[in-house]
Amino acid sequence: MRLLIINSNTSTAVTDIVAGAARRFASPGTELVFATSSFGARVIASRTENAVAQHSTVDLAARYSKDCDGVQIAVSYDSGLRAARELLDPPVLAMTEASLLAALMLGSRVGLIIWGQGATALYHEIIDSYGLGSRICGSRRLDLPMPIDAISRAKMDDAIIAAAHDLMDQHEAEAIVLVGAVLAGRSHDLQERIPIPLLDGIRCGLPMLEAMVRIGALPPARGSYARPRGRDSKGLSSALGGLIGGDD
Amino acid sequence: MRLLIINSNTSTAVTDIVAGAARRFASPGTELVFATSSFGARVIASRTENAVAQHSTVDLAARYSKDCDGVQIAVSYDSGLRAARELLDPPVLAMTEASLLAALMLGSRVGLIIWGQGATALYHEIIDSYGLGSRICGSRRLDLPMPIDAISRAKMDDAIIAAAHDLMDQHEAEAIVLVGAVLAGRSHDLQERIPIPLLDGIRCGLPMLEAMVRIGALPPARGSYARPRGRDSKGLSSALGGLIGGDD
Amino acid sequence: MRLLIINSNTSTAVTDIVAGAARRFASPGTELVFATSSFGARVIASRTENAVAQHSTVDLAARYSKDCDGVQIAVSYDSGLRAARELLDPPVLAMTEASLLAALMLGSRVGLIIWGQGATALYHEIIDSYGLGSRICGSRRLDLPMPIDAISRAKMDDAIIAAAHDLMDQHEAEAIVLVGAVLAGRSHDLQERIPIPLLDGIRCGLPMLEAMVRIGALPPARGSYARPRGRDSKGLSSALGGLIGGDD
Amino acid sequence: MRLLIINSNTSTAVTDIVAGAARRFASPGTELVFATSSFGARVIASRTENAVAQHSTVDLAARYSKDCDGVQIAVSYDSGLRAARELLDPPVLAMTEASLLAALMLGSRVGLIIWGQGATALYHEIIDSYGLGSRICGSRRLDLPMPIDAISRAKMDDAIIAAAHDLMDQHEAEAIVLVGAVLAGRSHDLQERIPIPLLDGIRCGLPMLEAMVRIGALPPARGSYARPRGRDSKGLSSALGGLIGGDD
Amino acid sequence: MRLLIINSNTSTAVTDIVAGAARRFASPGTELVFATSSFGARVIASRTENAVAQHSTVDLAARYSKDCDGVQIAVSYDSGLRAARELLDPPVLAMTEASLLAALMLGSRVGLIIWGQGATALYHEIIDSYGLGSRICGSRRLDLPMPIDAISRAKMDDAIIAAAHDLMDQHEAEAIVLVGAVLAGRSHDLQERIPIPLLDGIRCGLPMLEAMVRIGALPPARGSYARPRGRDSKGLSSALGGLIGGDD
Amino acid sequence: MRLLIINSNTSTAVTDIVAGAARRFASPGTELVFATSSFGARVIASRTENAVAQHSTVDLAARYSKDCDGVQIAVSYDSGLRAARELLDPPVLAMTEASLLAALMLGSRVGLIIWGQGATALYHEIIDSYGLGSRICGSRRLDLPMPIDAISRAKMDDAIIAAAHDLMDQHEAEAIVLVGAVLAGRSHDLQERIPIPLLDGIRCGLPMLEAMVRIGALPPARGSYARPRGRDSKGLSSALGGLIGGDD
Repeated sequence: MRLLIINSNTSTAVTDIVAGAARRFASPGTELVFATSSFGARVIASRTENAVAQHSTVDLAARYSKDCDGVQIAVSYDSGLRAARELLDPPVLAMTEASLLAALMLGSRVGLIIWGQGATALYHEIIDSYGLGSRICGSRRLDLPMPIDAISRAKMDDAIIAAAHDLMDQHEAEAIVLVGAVLAGRSHDLQERIPIPLLDGIRCGLPMLEAMVRIGALPPARGSYARPRGRDSKGLSSALGGLIGGDD
Repeated sequence: MRLLIINSNTSTAVTDIVAGAARRFASPGTELVFATSSFGARVIASRTENAVAQHSTVDLAARYSKDCDGVQIAVSYDSGLRAARELLDPPVLAMTEASLLAALMLGSRVGLIIWGQGATALYHEIIDSYGLGSRICGSRRLDLPMPIDAISRAKMDDAIIAAAHDLMDQHEAEAIVLVGAVLAGRSHDLQERIPIPLLDGIRCGLPMLEAMVRIGALPPARGSYARPRGRDSKGLSSALGGLIGGDD
Repeated sequence: MRLLIINSNTSTAVTDIVAGAARRFASPGTELVFATSSFGARVIASRTENAVAQHSTVDLAARYSKDCDGVQIAVSYDSGLRAARELLDPPVLAMTEASLLAALMLGSRVGLIIWGQGATALYHEIIDSYGLGSRICGSRRLDLPMPIDAISRAKMDDAIIAAAHDLMDQHEAEAIVLVGAVLAGRSHDLQERIPIPLLDGIRCGLPMLEAMVRIGALPPARGSYARPRGRDSKGLSSALGGLIGGDD
Repeated sequence: MRLLIINSNTSTAVTDIVAGAARRFASPGTELVFATSSFGARVIASRTENAVAQHSTVDLAARYSKDCDGVQIAVSYDSGLRAARELLDPPVLAMTEASLLAALMLGSRVGLIIWGQGATALYHEIIDSYGLGSRICGSRRLDLPMPIDAISRAKMDDAIIAAAHDLMDQHEAEAIVLVGAVLAGRSHDLQERIPIPLLDGIRCGLPMLEAMVRIGALPPARGSYARPRGRDSKGLSSALGGLIGGDD
Repeated sequence: MRLLIINSNTSTAVTDIVAGAARRFASPGTELVFATSSFGARVIASRTENAVAQHSTVDLAARYSKDCDGVQIAVSYDSGLRAARELLDPPVLAMTEASLLAALMLGSRVGLIIWGQGATALYHEIIDSYGLGSRICGSRRLDLPMPIDAISRAKMDDAIIAAAHDLMDQHEAEAIVLVGAVLAGRSHDLQERIPIPLLDGIRCGLPMLEAMVRIGALPPARGSYARPRGRDSKGLSSALGGLIGGDD
Repeated sequence: MRLLIINSNTSTAVTDIVAGAARRFASPGTELVFATSSFGARVIASRTENAVAQHSTVDLAARYSKDCDGVQIAVSYDSGLRAARELLDPPVLAMTEASLLAALMLGSRVGLIIWGQGATALYHEIIDSYGLGSRICGSRRLDLPMPIDAISRAKMDDAIIAAAHDLMDQHEAEAIVLVGAVLAGRSHDLQERIPIPLLDGIRCGLPMLEAMVRIGALPPARGSYARPRGRDSKGLSSALGGLIGGDD
């Protein structure tokens, strides 16, 4: 099985974090391919950068998904998720959606712990757009810089533990999702310190993507997710323009 | 990996259908254990029988889940799902929930095709209770007897295809879920005849359960899904009474 | 008028509390019959015990409802309510639903005060499943042991008063429901100490059940609440198995 | 027990219909007092007339509720219901709300059959404002004149039966509410012809109002339903102006 | 362009405040006509007074809207808004609805700051009835008397600023609406002191009403907003009775 | 007043249609500036093209909004609306949102008539994301090619009239919105043929945008709509990269 992991940020450092986590949680025989955006924000943290990233995601999807059996969008805003699902034949998952769906199978009330410079409001909009907002009991944002050494990482870990207890005490959270590509894989390392399930988008995304590949649903030929064909466009990469411009 | 498949019906014929499908969609190395209810309806098709099946599910869960890494409830009402999640340490999935969550990753608007003597109203209540009702665009019920030979099976298949087109034409369905344990695995066989993704609870449930086992979230020690302990009860099977009566 | 009060707990002490309250709030000429579960939890306080109680409720309903004009389920999780409605011809009410419906006629924003070892999350799920969640403004849980004497009862009363004021101050509650069979009838005694309507499930349930008996709607012969007939089952009490197995 | 029945229409013919039904469904010992609006529409059938009726309802409530134990608003738009609840100490119910709450205890999916010149849209707004919209599965409007003789009444009855079957067949209705003061009491007469519970606002309203009187909740001294006091106004009836202008 | 501003309060002092604000925010060439209620509350602050105001609004609308191109209801409960829309041909807006719709175009999460003796619960009911409740992130009520001099006005201003910061800090408000006719125009004066958009019902209502006049939609001849005709009523002002009683 | 009209399509023919309509509905003194996307779809009709258009909108916004008092996004998917609101200081409106908000002020139940090759599902997702879905009663899609002459335009007009009547008859629509940039301005020309208000995105958008400019709310300095600053990016136009990269 060959999976494409799309980083719609232009930061290869984020790709490295995601790649490290993805390799831990993918099955042994799974081959992983990574693609980093060639334009847009180093680290997406605003609505404007997210708008650009929508373009970036479909561009990367068109350019790198060939011969891949599944695609994971590894940005926490799930930028361009629905568009990439429309564009490609294999299943496409994204970090935040995948971790939420896993959380729904573990608890009724899901709390979010968010790292990032952007506002939590945007995450709630995204989750509401999935029709899943009624299952979210609350969220906490970590006001900390990107950790760069053991000390700042320990501080981040402590902040996550504190936020998790706050979500349990104040909002009766029964499962918690770490939101933010930088936190990829951290849920596994911190699980022992928290008395309810703790999840993140890569730890959930890779196994769930492999499951979707195995389920093997056919891509739709009708409806709003059918791949566009014969579309007239300009200024797009040849991969993207060609994929939607062709007739089959 | 060892998975328990719970059939809360007392019909072993249903267990056989489910087992046949489960073995097709489980990974090669996965060991499957099947348990059939010792009391209650032969085939659950009413609220009353579903109430009994809630008991049956936790009873089977307590009696047969030892040494299992995950549990699949293979009745389409997902009877006792939340209770079994509370009761057991490994992840517990159920047919209808699993197929819906998979469908959410394939289309925005999900249609249901239901076989069974019970009313469709109950399925909508179940899905609403998961907070997923806003993603369901419509449902169709198959008014056909249980298929017993090639002719009646072909008739059932044709009815499914017709209902699927109806859901696409009338409700803009973008993915369709076959609901009912008797339809386990049929979505795979019929996928080619329908232009949008077609899913069912065993085809989705097994791969997703394996994914949840690999994700490996810890069972909760707090909240409404923490396993009950030290509970005083009577008249339960020793397995169930013992599991909730013990102190650790 | 003859009413059956079902206690799906196996504790006869809870039956006694409920019976005391029920006799206070029933009309003078109403005859009350009480039934206590023969299996399951002494006091239901978990999802697992609630699953068993679903079975217990329909079992008691089948065994004791003969010649009754109405049925009240006197457990605060309303365990098996919809199933018993399907199973029986006379109207079936439950504590929490009845007190909520009464509260809706007294204020726009309803607060909950909950006693019990179980989590409040489950009550919110139950109320959401009735489609009434938008009217609930908040809830408070009483972290106190079952009162056993005047001193502990006074302490419980004070905790209820404090929680009620908290719900008024923090959530603008306009009516408050005491949730938990142990609190049956307490709302009447404490009403004078709280400036907004205070209700409980037995004080509301009995008069509303009598009202439903008088309204006298016919039991449904169609839809998801029509009584199941001709069902094949095993291991059920003869009363329950016979009721759903018969042909008329 | 003494109950005030408010007809916010100025048509005494409607009062007569309502009074006839109310006397059938009230308990033997209950005394009924009827009040008809002195201003506004003969038969309320528009938003404008409903706006005037809001005033009329609180005016009648202030003038005629003295010594009454409960109040029933007998117009199908439930005009002024929340205001009258605020204004008066005894419980106040209204036709459409009462019949809906009764229907919720009989089925999960409730259908509406509406008679009246106004649009059905307004009824859906009213029900949504109660937070009950999710339980309504559909509605049908009767396009017939007010019945004046046996022939037109039989035609109306047949139209009701046809609409009920349509709601069962198309929307899986499990209980049906007849909406419109003119239909008061008809549900009882037609119940035998329809295989699911059929209700109306007077048949449900009287027993439920008596139940609320017996529950005996105290009127609120806080929150948005506390009676206004010391209010400065002009041009109101002395009863209404005095009731909100006084200091206790 | 000639606009009618309806004050459904009987206080001409409120009319003066509203008129002052309206003249600031209307376009230079717009002519403004003001009407004050002849009956009802001096200042509406309860459900009862709001019920009377519904009548008052349609009465003023019928009496003073002749030759007007648009109508603004200048009471913060938007009393009688839908009825006036039905009754009149030109567009009708109301304070709270207009400010909310403007706020929706400026932020995703809207906070409310409310002045008035009435409870905030009623405002939430009104906003929910518009289907806009999901966009409201929270509300704060100002517990201050009507300002009468520079000192009390400064105190009110400081309270508004504090409440706004509270809504930003606690609820992530992205735009804030001042609710209450007494606050008409204050949002403009205080905008500089708050880092997110601050709005009020007159500042938004006048420009939006002028926009609706320019859009120039035809009044509906069908549906629940079509003007009632040929209606039989009594005790209404000749203007109102005549408007709904006529045949065209 | 100077307004920027953004066409995120690359088709200048669409810009011409929009420009023609915009000039009809803008105030006499308003100056209009038009910008057409330099990359992406000729006519956006899929999720993929919409993803690219998100980038295009913020790019055009950054490049052309200098000295403009307001911005109108003239694509019917409202592509990039929230991002442009974050990015720019003046108010930003979009076609579909503006026409919906206007429709909310004219009727309770709003119907949609959609022209375009894309699926209607996407429009419902967009409207749900605004929190306005509960006000939409139904939609109809026009299956017709882009009109190129008087005959095909008349055919389109007839199809619109038929769809409008269908929405009134089947869904009780009280106001109707024409969706699709190609229909810009058509609602005005067809209004006389339809008995309820008919609107479109340019006819509503221009007057509402002018109103928002006059309301003059300050751009937010906090929350999820505060303009990003000091952001590190690459591959963006110098206008866009500079606008989010600068420090004030």
